[in-house]
Amino acid sequence: MRGPARLAAASLVAAVALPVIGHAQLFTLTRDQMIEYTAQNPFERFPDGRPKVPDALIERTRALSAEEVFAILPGKGFRNQYEDGFQILHPGKKLVGRAFTLQFMPLRPDLDGVINARAQAAGLGRMSNQTAIDMLQPGDVLVVDLFGQGEGGTIVGDNLFYYIMKATKAAGLVVDGSIRDLEGIAGMDMPAYFRHAHPSAIGNVIISGINVPVRIGKATVMPGDLVFGDREGVYFIPPALVEPVVDNADVIHIHDEWTRMKFDEGKYKSREIYGTPTDPALKKEYEEYLKKRLEEIRKTYKSAPGSH
Amino acid sequence: MRGPARLAAASLVAAVALPVIGHAQLFTLTRDQMIEYTAQNPFERFPDGRPKVPDALIERTRALSAEEVFAILPGKGFRNQYEDGFQILHPGKKLVGRAFTLQFMPLRPDLDGVINARAQAAGLGRMSNQTAIDMLQPGDVLVVDLFGQGEGGTIVGDNLFYYIMKATKAAGLVVDGSIRDLEGIAGMDMPAYFRHAHPSAIGNVIISGINVPVRIGKATVMPGDLVFGDREGVYFIPPALVEPVVDNADVIHIHDEWTRMKFDEGKYKSREIYGTPTDPALKKEYEEYLKKRLEEIRKTYKSAPGSH
Amino acid sequence: MRGPARLAAASLVAAVALPVIGHAQLFTLTRDQMIEYTAQNPFERFPDGRPKVPDALIERTRALSAEEVFAILPGKGFRNQYEDGFQILHPGKKLVGRAFTLQFMPLRPDLDGVINARAQAAGLGRMSNQTAIDMLQPGDVLVVDLFGQGEGGTIVGDNLFYYIMKATKAAGLVVDGSIRDLEGIAGMDMPAYFRHAHPSAIGNVIISGINVPVRIGKATVMPGDLVFGDREGVYFIPPALVEPVVDNADVIHIHDEWTRMKFDEGKYKSREIYGTPTDPALKKEYEEYLKKRLEEIRKTYKSAPGSH
Amino acid sequence: MRGPARLAAASLVAAVALPVIGHAQLFTLTRDQMIEYTAQNPFERFPDGRPKVPDALIERTRALSAEEVFAILPGKGFRNQYEDGFQILHPGKKLVGRAFTLQFMPLRPDLDGVINARAQAAGLGRMSNQTAIDMLQPGDVLVVDLFGQGEGGTIVGDNLFYYIMKATKAAGLVVDGSIRDLEGIAGMDMPAYFRHAHPSAIGNVIISGINVPVRIGKATVMPGDLVFGDREGVYFIPPALVEPVVDNADVIHIHDEWTRMKFDEGKYKSREIYGTPTDPALKKEYEEYLKKRLEEIRKTYKSAPGSH
Amino acid sequence: MRGPARLAAASLVAAVALPVIGHAQLFTLTRDQMIEYTAQNPFERFPDGRPKVPDALIERTRALSAEEVFAILPGKGFRNQYEDGFQILHPGKKLVGRAFTLQFMPLRPDLDGVINARAQAAGLGRMSNQTAIDMLQPGDVLVVDLFGQGEGGTIVGDNLFYYIMKATKAAGLVVDGSIRDLEGIAGMDMPAYFRHAHPSAIGNVIISGINVPVRIGKATVMPGDLVFGDREGVYFIPPALVEPVVDNADVIHIHDEWTRMKFDEGKYKSREIYGTPTDPALKKEYEEYLKKRLEEIRKTYKSAPGSH
Amino acid sequence: MRGPARLAAASLVAAVALPVIGHAQLFTLTRDQMIEYTAQNPFERFPDGRPKVPDALIERTRALSAEEVFAILPGKGFRNQYEDGFQILHPGKKLVGRAFTLQFMPLRPDLDGVINARAQAAGLGRMSNQTAIDMLQPGDVLVVDLFGQGEGGTIVGDNLFYYIMKATKAAGLVVDGSIRDLEGIAGMDMPAYFRHAHPSAIGNVIISGINVPVRIGKATVMPGDLVFGDREGVYFIPPALVEPVVDNADVIHIHDEWTRMKFDEGKYKSREIYGTPTDPALKKEYEEYLKKRLEEIRKTYKSAPGSH
Repeated sequence: MRGPARLAAASLVAAVALPVIGHAQLFTLTRDQMIEYTAQNPFERFPDGRPKVPDALIERTRALSAEEVFAILPGKGFRNQYEDGFQILHPGKKLVGRAFTLQFMPLRPDLDGVINARAQAAGLGRMSNQTAIDMLQPGDVLVVDLFGQGEGGTIVGDNLFYYIMKATKAAGLVVDGSIRDLEGIAGMDMPAYFRHAHPSAIGNVIISGINVPVRIGKATVMPGDLVFGDREGVYFIPPALVEPVVDNADVIHIHDEWTRMKFDEGKYKSREIYGTPTDPALKKEYEEYLKKRLEEIRKTYKSAPGSH
Repeated sequence: MRGPARLAAASLVAAVALPVIGHAQLFTLTRDQMIEYTAQNPFERFPDGRPKVPDALIERTRALSAEEVFAILPGKGFRNQYEDGFQILHPGKKLVGRAFTLQFMPLRPDLDGVINARAQAAGLGRMSNQTAIDMLQPGDVLVVDLFGQGEGGTIVGDNLFYYIMKATKAAGLVVDGSIRDLEGIAGMDMPAYFRHAHPSAIGNVIISGINVPVRIGKATVMPGDLVFGDREGVYFIPPALVEPVVDNADVIHIHDEWTRMKFDEGKYKSREIYGTPTDPALKKEYEEYLKKRLEEIRKTYKSAPGSH
Repeated sequence: MRGPARLAAASLVAAVALPVIGHAQLFTLTRDQMIEYTAQNPFERFPDGRPKVPDALIERTRALSAEEVFAILPGKGFRNQYEDGFQILHPGKKLVGRAFTLQFMPLRPDLDGVINARAQAAGLGRMSNQTAIDMLQPGDVLVVDLFGQGEGGTIVGDNLFYYIMKATKAAGLVVDGSIRDLEGIAGMDMPAYFRHAHPSAIGNVIISGINVPVRIGKATVMPGDLVFGDREGVYFIPPALVEPVVDNADVIHIHDEWTRMKFDEGKYKSREIYGTPTDPALKKEYEEYLKKRLEEIRKTYKSAPGSH
Repeated sequence: MRGPARLAAASLVAAVALPVIGHAQLFTLTRDQMIEYTAQNPFERFPDGRPKVPDALIERTRALSAEEVFAILPGKGFRNQYEDGFQILHPGKKLVGRAFTLQFMPLRPDLDGVINARAQAAGLGRMSNQTAIDMLQPGDVLVVDLFGQGEGGTIVGDNLFYYIMKATKAAGLVVDGSIRDLEGIAGMDMPAYFRHAHPSAIGNVIISGINVPVRIGKATVMPGDLVFGDREGVYFIPPALVEPVVDNADVIHIHDEWTRMKFDEGKYKSREIYGTPTDPALKKEYEEYLKKRLEEIRKTYKSAPGSH
Repeated sequence: MRGPARLAAASLVAAVALPVIGHAQLFTLTRDQMIEYTAQNPFERFPDGRPKVPDALIERTRALSAEEVFAILPGKGFRNQYEDGFQILHPGKKLVGRAFTLQFMPLRPDLDGVINARAQAAGLGRMSNQTAIDMLQPGDVLVVDLFGQGEGGTIVGDNLFYYIMKATKAAGLVVDGSIRDLEGIAGMDMPAYFRHAHPSAIGNVIISGINVPVRIGKATVMPGDLVFGDREGVYFIPPALVEPVVDNADVIHIHDEWTRMKFDEGKYKSREIYGTPTDPALKKEYEEYLKKRLEEIRKTYKSAPGSH
Repeated sequence: MRGPARLAAASLVAAVALPVIGHAQLFTLTRDQMIEYTAQNPFERFPDGRPKVPDALIERTRALSAEEVFAILPGKGFRNQYEDGFQILHPGKKLVGRAFTLQFMPLRPDLDGVINARAQAAGLGRMSNQTAIDMLQPGDVLVVDLFGQGEGGTIVGDNLFYYIMKATKAAGLVVDGSIRDLEGIAGMDMPAYFRHAHPSAIGNVIISGINVPVRIGKATVMPGDLVFGDREGVYFIPPALVEPVVDNADVIHIHDEWTRMKFDEGKYKSREIYGTPTDPALKKEYEEYLKKRLEEIRKTYKSAPGSH
C-alpha cells in the first residue's frame, strides 16, 4: 500500500540519532529526566536513557503467560499494567520487547503550527509517524496511544509494518488505535495488537509525545517497560520487576508439571493436589521435585550467553 | 498456572461422594427434590437424582447443529434454552454432555461466614470452585453462572481446566463468566465456551448453588440437561426432548443430502427442490430416498452398544 | 392499564399470611434459615424471620447520600452492595426501605409445571408477580432480579405500581428489569429504579425465589437489607451496618457544614480546610464544633419516638 | 438444515426470467430506470439493465486490498462505499462479484397482504427469500439489507447457501443481518460477510425491494456495483470506478515491491524510501522500475482472454 | 441557527402542491399506489392518497398510553409498530398525528446526479430536506429514517423546527437520526423524538423517498399511520386499528379508575381485584360501573364536533 | 461528604502562587512555553502565560449555541474541538469560561514515587486533586482528562465542588471521568459536564499534567481555551476564534429573528425564506433588517464596561 502518510507532529529530541536542540524538549524526556523517571531500572540504558532490559531476560519472558505476570505485579502495587480487548494478529505468537512509546492527540492547527515550526528549525522536516518509526531499535515494541481511534487512527499500513518488522527484529506493535491494510499485514510474521483495521490513512491527528509515559486503555506505560502479550492481552512490566516475574514463573511451570503428572495418575481429587498437596508425603514429594527441577532450569540460564 | 484460588462458597450436600448433612441442603437439591424438578426425565439418574442421558444418545447428538435443536424446542414451548455471544475455544469441536450446574453471587462477608460455618461443620473445609469441580463425572459439562464477570470471574486456569478434561473425559465447559490462562488452555483438547479471558484469579464471589437451576444469559439450565454447543452457540436440551431432537435430525440430514444432490444436478431453481419438491414425481423420489436412508441409519443405532 | 399479568411462578411459603406447606420450601427460606442467614441482624424480625430495621433508623437514613454509605461498607468488606445504571423515576426523591426480594428465571415449561403443581396443592392458585406483591408490608422496597430484561420483563404497570405504593406506604421499587406504563406511573409519588420501560406485559419468565438472596447487577441483596437510593444509584445495606452508617453520616454532615462555612469566608485554599485543617487552631475549632453539633443532633434522636 | 423458510415478500418484476407485469414494478426498477440510475456504467448490462462489470476486471480486482480501493473512491466523492464490522466466514478468501441487492423491512400484515396479492396475480406464488435467490447469476454477490437483525434475520441456512454457491460460482454473500447453520456453512468454500449467526429461521420480515439501491450499514449499494471484500471489510465500487481502481492498484503493488526490496537492503530509514525516495538517484531508480514492471503487468492483461 | 442546509435529494412527485411529472415517480408513490398500499384505511384521504385519520380520533388518541396500543396491535399481527430508545424533547407532552415519511441514504454522487437532474427538469430546483418539509400539513408528524446518523444526520435546526411547528400545528417530529440546535429547540412547544443532538448541519446524505414505507429502528411505518408517542416510545398505528385501540382504551381507563378506587379502600389484596375481581359480587359491581362509565364517555364523543 | 482524597500526583510549578523550582517543570508548561504554544492568543495572559479571554467576550459567549460555534471552527480547520455524551448537571444553564486543564493517568507506584519526591522537595507536600483546584481563578472552567473513568475517577464530591464554585465564580467543570455525591451537588448552581457519578473517592490515579494540552474524548483542549457548553455538548474555542464566533453569532441571531417573523406571517414555504430569501424584495428587506439590528447590538457592546 502506498501513500506518504505525512501528518502533523511534535517537536522532539531524537536523542538516538539527532542533534540536541537545547531546552526545547517539550514532548519528549531529556536523558536526565528519563533516568529520573525510571530510576528503579536495574539494567543498562540506551543512549537516550531508556531502560534496556537484557536480551536474555527477554528470551526467558517468552515462556510466560499473562497469569504469571499477574502473580507478581498487583502484589507489588502495580495494578494498572494490563490491557485487553485488542484484535491479535497472530494469537499463537508471543509478543515480547522493550516499549518505545508514542502519543497522539486530535489535530489542532494552532498546536500543529508551533510543533512543525520547531521541527523545521531543528532540521527534522515535517513530523509524521515515520519520524518515530525511524528511531526504533532491535527488540523494541512500538506502543502507540491513538486514543482508540478507528478511521484515521491507522498507525501503519503494510509497508511501514514491514519496516518495523525489519527494524525491531520482529519484536512487535501495540496500538490503542488502528492499522490499515490488514490483508497485507496478515502474512507478516510479527506480533501486533490493535483495536481496529480500517482502509483509511492516518490523519486528523498530531504527535504529542515520543518516549513519554502513555496510557494504553487503563494501563500506564513507561518507555523501556518490558511489553508482554499473549492470547489474553498485553502486560507492561516495569524493568525492576522483570526478573522477579520470570523467576517466579519457573516455580509455577514446575508446579504445573508436577500437578498434571499427579492428575494423570487419576487417583486424586483436584483439592488433594492443587494448590498445595494435602497429604504431607505428597507435599514433600512436590518440594523435592521443585528443588531438583529448579536447579536444572537455573543451570540452563547460567550456561546461556548473555545471562546475568 | 499456580495459585490456590480459594474462595467463599456455599454449604452443600456433595451427594456423590460426601456424607449427608441432614436438612441443611439449602443451596443444592435433595435427591427427592431433584427427581421432582426433573420429573419428565425418561432416563436413568445419578445417585443424587440428576438425570443421566445415555451415552449412545450423547454420541448421536454430536452430529447435530444448533438449527436442528431449534427445529424442535421452541415448538414444544422451550424458547429459552439457547445462548450465544461466547468466545469458543475450539470452533470446530462440538460440545456435548450432561449439565453439572454451578451458581455464583458477588461476595458478601455475612453470607460467606454462614456458608463456611456450615461447610466446616460438615467437614468440607473451606468452600472453593474446586469443591464443585471435584464432583464432576465422565460426560459432565460444567455449566457456570458467574453473571458475566470478567476480572475475578475466572472459573478455572489451565491446571483446573486440565483436571476437568481428565474428570469429564473432555466433555466440556460453559461459563457465563471468564477463564484465566487462555494461553495455557488453548492447547488442550476440550470444548469451552466463555465470555472473557483474564489473568486474574477467581475472587470476590461466593458459590450460591451446586446442581440447582441456573441462568446462562437468557437461558434456564437444569442439572442433567444435555448441553450442546457448535460454532453458533449453546443449547441446553431437557432430557425428555433429546430423542425427539436427534430423531428429527436424522430426517433433516437425509433431506440435506438429497437437496444437495439435486442442486448438484444444476437443473433446478431452489424453490423447485427446497423446502419441498414442487414436482410430484420429485417429491415421491425424495420420500423413497428418505425412507431408505432412515432405515439404513436406524440400523446402525440398533447395532451400537448402549443403544436403547 | 389492564391485563391480568398471570405468569409461571415458584412454589413458596407465604410465611406472613399463608399456611405452612411442610418441607416444600424450595425457593424461599424457612424462618430458621432466614434467621441463620441473617444472623448478624441486631434488630427485631418479621414473623417469617426477615430482619426489620426500625422505622426511626429508616428515617435517619433518608438524610444520607450514597457517598456516606460508601464511607463505611467497603471498609467492612462489603464491596458488592451498590448498583447503578438505573433509570430513576423521581431523581430528587430518596428511596429508603427494607428489601423484599424476588427472583425470576426465563420460562421453562417443565419447571413451570412442577412449580404450579405445588402451588395448586398448597391452595395458592397459579403463581404470578401478584403472589409476591400481595405479601408486601409497609416500609418494604420490592427488589426484583429480572436479569435486566426489557420486553416481557415488566414487573408492574401503573395499577400494580399503585397497589405497591399503597401497600408499602410509598417505600419504593428496584427492578433489574423493566416497568410498563411509564406514562401512568410518572405521576405517582413513589421512588422507583428500573432498567427500561416497555409497553409489553410481563411474560416468558418464571418466579424462582421470594425473599431469597438475589443479584441486582453486581450486588448481592439479602431480604431485610436496608435499601437506599439517591440520584447516583442504590445501596443495599446489611442491617448490622445501618447504625454505623448513619452515625458516621452525622459526623460527615457536620464536617460539611463547617467546611462550607470556612470556604464561605473566602480566606482559605481548599487544602487548608479540607479534609483536615492544617492549622492546629482551626483544627481545634472544628473539633469543638463537631462535638457541640453532634450533641445537638443526638439529642433529637433521643427525643424521637421509636429511637433505640 | 431443513425448513421451508417461506416469508412475506414484495411483488416484483423478475426481469430476468419472468413475464412483465405492466406498471406493477413498485419495488424493483424497470430496465429503463435501472439504466437511468446507473448511467455512468461503462460496461455491458444484464437483460434487466443491471451493469455487468466484465469477468476480466473481476479477476484483476481479486488482487486488491481495501486500501487500494480507498486510494481512489473518496477522492472521487464516493465516501460512503465501505462497511465493516462483519463476521467473515473465510478471512483469507477475497470476495469479488457484481452486487445483486435485496431489501427487507419488518413484517406488517397489511403491506404483506397487498404484496402477496400482487405476487399471486403475477403467478409468482408466495414471496420468499428464495424468489430472489433463484434469480442469481454466475458472478453475482447477494447483498442483503436485513437492518442488522439477529434472530429471524437469517437470510440463508446451509442448503440455500449451497444453492447460492452453485448459482453464483461461489461469488459470495454480504448480509447486514444473519445467517443460520454456521456449523454447516463453515465447510463451504464461498466468501460470506454477516453480522450474526443464529439458529432461527428467517421470519417476521418482508421483502421490500429486489435490485434497488440499498443501505448496508453506512454504505449505499447500487445493483451492479462491484463488491470487494477482504479481511477488513467490504467495498461497493461503482462500475465506472473499477478500472481506475485496479489500474492504480498496479502502481501501488509495484511501489510496494520496490519499497520492500529497499527495506530489505537494511541501509535506509523508512522516510528515505517511503512514500517517495528523498535521494534523486533513488527516485529515478524507482521510476524506471515502475515503468518496466507496469509494462510487464499490462502485457499480461492484453494477452488474457476477455480483456478490453 | 442559520445555514442553507441544501442537500442531495430524490426526484419526487410533490402531489400536494407541485405539477405532475409523468412516470418519473420513482421514489414516491402515485395516488393509485398509495391507495393500493393502504387499502385497509377506513377514512378519507389527502389528495395524494395518503390516509387521513379524522381529527376527532386524533384527539381521543391523546389520552392513550403505549400499553393501550400494545393491548391491540400484536394481537392483530402487528408486532413491529413500536420503537423506543429515543431522546424525548418534552417527556410529559404526548405526540399524536399522521405520519409523513421521509427516507435518506448515505450520499453517492452518481445517484445524486441522476436525482437532481430529474428534479431540475421538473422545476423543483435542488433537492433538500426543505423540499419535503414544505409539503407538511396540519396534524402531520414528520417521520424520518436517517439510519440513526449522528453527525450530519440532523434533519432540522431551530429555524426549520419552528417552521414545522407552525406548519403542522405542533403535531411533532420523529427522527431515527439527529437534530441540531437542541438549545434553541428546547424552548419550543412541539413533541420531538430523536436519537442524538449534534451541532453539525445535515450533509453527506441523499433523500431516497418521500411518503414511502420506511423503517424506524425495528418498526415499519406507512404514510398516514397514526403516530403516537409517550414517555416510553413511539407507536405507528395503522389507520384501520385506530378506532379499535381507542375504544378498548376507554375500557382500560374505566378499569383503572375502578381498580384504584378499590385499592384505596385498603381492604383487598391486589389479586382479589386485579385483573378480574375474584368475588362474584365485586365482579358484578365492576361490570355495572364499566357499563355506566362507558355510556358517559361515549356520550361525550357523540356531542363532539367532527365525531363519526 | 468527607474524606481527604489524597492521591498520587505530579511535580509541577504552581506558577500562580508558588515559588519557581528551577528546571523541574516536567508536567506543566513554563511561561515561555505556554506563550509559544498559544502564540495566536490575541488577549492578555495570566502570570503563568495562560491566555485570558476578556470578561466581556465571555459574557457575549453566554448567548451562543453549539451550532454557532460550529459555524466558524471547522471552516478554520478546527475540527476536533467538540465533545458530547456527557451527563449535564443543569441542562438549561450555559457553561462559559477559560480552560484550566488537568490530566491524570492510571497509578504506577514507580512514577508516583518520583513525582512525590519532587513535590516534597518543592515544599508542595503530597500531590492531590486539591493541589490543582487551589490554583483556580475566577472565570476558570476546570477541564479534567480522567480517561472516562467511573469508579475511582471522581474528581470532586460536594465539598470540593462547592469550593470550585466559590473560587471560579461558578464558571464550571468538565470532566471526562466522574464526580461523586451527585445528590449533594445537584442543588449547587454551577454548570458541570461529567461521564458518570459514583460514590467512590478518587483513587488509583496519578496527576500527570496541569495546564498542559489534554484530550477530552475526541477533542484537544489547550489551557486558556474558551469553554462553552450547552444542552448538546461542550466546545473548546481557541482564544483567537472567540471574537469571530460571537460576531458571526450576532448575524445568526438576527437572521433567526427575521426568519421567524416571516414564518409567523404564515405566507411562505420554508424555502422561500430560509436560508436566503428567494424573492429579491424580501432579500433586500432582510439585508436592511440585518444592518439595522447589527448596529443596535454592536452599540450595546461599545457601551458595556470592559469591552474592547
